[in-house]
Amino acid sequence: MSHTPDTSLQVVILAGGSGTRFWPLSRHQRPKQLLPLVGSRTTLELTVERLLPLVPATRMTVITNRAQAPAVAELLAPWLGPGQIIAEPRGRNTAPAIALAARLLVREGGAGTMLVCPADHYIGAADIFRETLATAARVAAAGWLVTLGITPSRPETGYGYIQAGEPLPAGDWPAETARKVARFVEKPDRQRASEYLAAGNFYWNSGIFLWRPEVILDEISRHLPGIAACLDEFDRRRAQDGLDEALNGYFAAVEAISIDYGVLEKSSRVAVIPGNFAWSDLGSWDALDELGLRPAGLESETIAVEAANNAVFSDKPTALVGVKDLLVVDTPDALLICRKGRSQQVREVVARLQEQGREDLL
Amino acid sequence: MSHTPDTSLQVVILAGGSGTRFWPLSRHQRPKQLLPLVGSRTTLELTVERLLPLVPATRMTVITNRAQAPAVAELLAPWLGPGQIIAEPRGRNTAPAIALAARLLVREGGAGTMLVCPADHYIGAADIFRETLATAARVAAAGWLVTLGITPSRPETGYGYIQAGEPLPAGDWPAETARKVARFVEKPDRQRASEYLAAGNFYWNSGIFLWRPEVILDEISRHLPGIAACLDEFDRRRAQDGLDEALNGYFAAVEAISIDYGVLEKSSRVAVIPGNFAWSDLGSWDALDELGLRPAGLESETIAVEAANNAVFSDKPTALVGVKDLLVVDTPDALLICRKGRSQQVREVVARLQEQGREDLL
Repeated sequence: MSHTPDTSLQVVILAGGSGTRFWPLSRHQRPKQLLPLVGSRTTLELTVERLLPLVPATRMTVITNRAQAPAVAELLAPWLGPGQIIAEPRGRNTAPAIALAARLLVREGGAGTMLVCPADHYIGAADIFRETLATAARVAAAGWLVTLGITPSRPETGYGYIQAGEPLPAGDWPAETARKVARFVEKPDRQRASEYLAAGNFYWNSGIFLWRPEVILDEISRHLPGIAACLDEFDRRRAQDGLDEALNGYFAAVEAISIDYGVLEKSSRVAVIPGNFAWSDLGSWDALDELGLRPAGLESETIAVEAANNAVFSDKPTALVGVKDLLVVDTPDALLICRKGRSQQVREVVARLQEQGREDLL
Repeated sequence: MSHTPDTSLQVVILAGGSGTRFWPLSRHQRPKQLLPLVGSRTTLELTVERLLPLVPATRMTVITNRAQAPAVAELLAPWLGPGQIIAEPRGRNTAPAIALAARLLVREGGAGTMLVCPADHYIGAADIFRETLATAARVAAAGWLVTLGITPSRPETGYGYIQAGEPLPAGDWPAETARKVARFVEKPDRQRASEYLAAGNFYWNSGIFLWRPEVILDEISRHLPGIAACLDEFDRRRAQDGLDEALNGYFAAVEAISIDYGVLEKSSRVAVIPGNFAWSDLGSWDALDELGLRPAGLESETIAVEAANNAVFSDKPTALVGVKDLLVVDTPDALLICRKGRSQQVREVVARLQEQGREDLL
């Protein structure tokens, strides 16, 4: 806790997901964060725009994968230069990406505080979100690994939870705002989710984190020494062979592990700050439907005859007769009909298509 | 019963239906009998082909409407000349069309026996069908109005029934084959349909009829004198102004009524001959599904994840997750999802589109 507070933020946006659960809209080359899920806008664009009032675009970095990098660069061209987009040669989960981003920020000097933010989430109230971040940044500047916990609105079984413990020692932030994390909890069953909701000190794990780069690197050295060693090798190869070669070597060698599992669940320096804004990980067609969102191009009219409680995402007029509780997704080259509440299983459709080698549909 | 038996058949195919129940595949310009419902073949083509071993194509006439006449002529060009296709200026149900066809046959001389056959039905065993017709033609030649009654295989509520009465007096046909019709029954409820099935002397009304033209004209004069008068006027105008003008005048003036309601339910000369072959009026997507038929172009693969008992008629790969008992019809410009057993209500979708003036979808 000896670090000097520093609220100058550096944003690291994680945009490497594959998003098979939005099939048939999502494909290899068109993952979730590149889909116009919110009207005609992608969540990636909205993630950048939402942060702009707080952080200049020059202080943002996006980490994506090679397949998606050109599309990401094109989409973000109004704000970010090509040098601000890091393309992973292969996906290795969040810890290697975050470790690398932290090391790059430290090497570039004056790192300040690092905000890690997924590119594919929905956030309802951008102003409250930014206020929360401003507070979180002060806590992070004091040396904490800060997680944003979303105040739950329902006994959701699709999210991990964070249990808040004792308040942090007083600091440069409103008293009682931040608490130490007692523990992380995997996706619970319905019974436990209800208990968490009633308890009042459980939050959804948003995957939004703030910390000083040197603090997270410290913790990575302690809990993931293999990744720390890969970072040192990355520095060496970068000096010798350039960035691309260094990235290839790093992502080939590094362990694939999430920052939650690799560091946050083990560290004693983790705090949680409640976020009181509408939030969703947009993990499925069900999630999109619950928020009333319709992707651009899938907003066609529906003719319902004795049909109710259906969600239609279609590129052409759709008639429903005597059916209920359906999610319908109609795109030019594939059709999905899924019972509401079952859209997690769209992954199984994609797996089936992979087994069959149907690259045309993947 | 004084007519000389004459088994030389003249075929009149009724092909004037609009077929809204096969929306979105069927449209104004593409009614049911012009759809490739049975593999790549239309029921109209199959109707002609099925009869060819029994009746030469030169003895066939098709009655359709003006909008469909060009498509009908093109489809039947391998067998029928343009003069064998009569285009109604407006649809007036079956009695006016049958009356006109009978009068034309009488005027052309040597009428023999007239077989009236819908163009949009499914018949499973063409050889048994033709055998039944050959017998029916002998009964018709003896002066009876012969209806083909299909031996029911289930308590169907979607068809009208014919109750058979006493056997006909002996004639030039196997004893007990033909019976007098006791009565016609409208579509029954489930309870009555079960009773009819158990009774054993009820048959589905197939809409397939055989009679001598002069006999049906006799009965029309008796029970539908207005139509008989219109026929006389038709003859006058034809001589004076030609066929097109005569047709315009006839269909403008004539009463719209079915031959069943207008004549058969009232006449005492009606017989029924059982047809022991698979038959369906192909009245809906449900009927098509029950026969396992897939229209050409809608045979795409289905990926089912915990989904069963769905019928998919789709032009592209279709994934089903956690759903059952659905009829899915996906065409390039409209999608239909209907609970099985409810496809009669597809008419309501079409009615809704008509109200909305959606000519692009009609």
